[in-house]
Amino acid sequence: MNLEELIRDVPDFPKAGIVFKDITPLLANSEALVYCADRLAQLCPIDVKIDKVIGIEARGFILGGMIAQRLGAGFIPVRKKGKLPSAVISKSYGLEYGEDVLEIHKDAIKPGDTVLIHDDVLATGGTANAACELVEKLGGNIVQCNFIMELGFLNGKKKLNYKVASLLGY
Amino acid sequence: MNLEELIRDVPDFPKAGIVFKDITPLLANSEALVYCADRLAQLCPIDVKIDKVIGIEARGFILGGMIAQRLGAGFIPVRKKGKLPSAVISKSYGLEYGEDVLEIHKDAIKPGDTVLIHDDVLATGGTANAACELVEKLGGNIVQCNFIMELGFLNGKKKLNYKVASLLGY
Repeated sequence: MNLEELIRDVPDFPKAGIVFKDITPLLANSEALVYCADRLAQLCPIDVKIDKVIGIEARGFILGGMIAQRLGAGFIPVRKKGKLPSAVISKSYGLEYGEDVLEIHKDAIKPGDTVLIHDDVLATGGTANAACELVEKLGGNIVQCNFIMELGFLNGKKKLNYKVASLLGY
Repeated sequence: MNLEELIRDVPDFPKAGIVFKDITPLLANSEALVYCADRLAQLCPIDVKIDKVIGIEARGFILGGMIAQRLGAGFIPVRKKGKLPSAVISKSYGLEYGEDVLEIHKDAIKPGDTVLIHDDVLATGGTANAACELVEKLGGNIVQCNFIMELGFLNGKKKLNYKVASLLGY
């Protein structure tokens, strides 16, 4: 399946000079949606049982649930500041277009849990790295970070201390 | 499966006096996650082929993808203002704790598409109704609105002109 045909380039989003890779045509295609979830689950190491799949708000939620099902794992949301209702730990981080804060529920990960981190796009790696640090603080063992696509020219992979898998690279 | 045991009451969130129904323990339970997606897909009318499942940002994204797969449908995100990169239509609406704007890509729904709308919680119905109005403007035929839970005391169902299905009621 040619996923690249289903990624739309949107010039000047979120600001002038940026060409945004829009995954919504891919998500809208029922076959591509299932194919992506299947492939991302298959790219996960088969010798480790994953306990929890982390989806990063908001686009990481869409395939995160689908991947969790394939791995027999629970789904854990990592969210923007103030969105999670119960007790959280927080991490501020720089991202491609500014700065932000991510949070996770304190009881979302038990020490020793095996964890897969998923987001739609790996850009500078700031967001995924913040999610990794939150999981580390809670004692989780990160097995892999996976993405629908990786913007290789931004070198995000260098910021992550874990194995990275992506379906598409630019 | 007793889903209610996996819903956590969080007092005074997002503001004093509100008891928030937190679904994250349910999502973190791998069996409950799959059960919810299965049941929500099964509650959908079987005599109509669904073309598109709408997930409302952000918690509606998590099961939205899983439900879309079960129905053989594509997934369409309805998002907060400024988050979708391509050409959109917008709808402002009152919600339980303030006011907000929802958007959908203009090309996300084709006239005549059959559409299922999913969100995690039906509260006052303002958010789901705004999503319905966006789909109507694009010519989609809404078959059902479904939710993990319905806060019946807020009468959200009255605001929606479509069939509503929920797994839990409060």
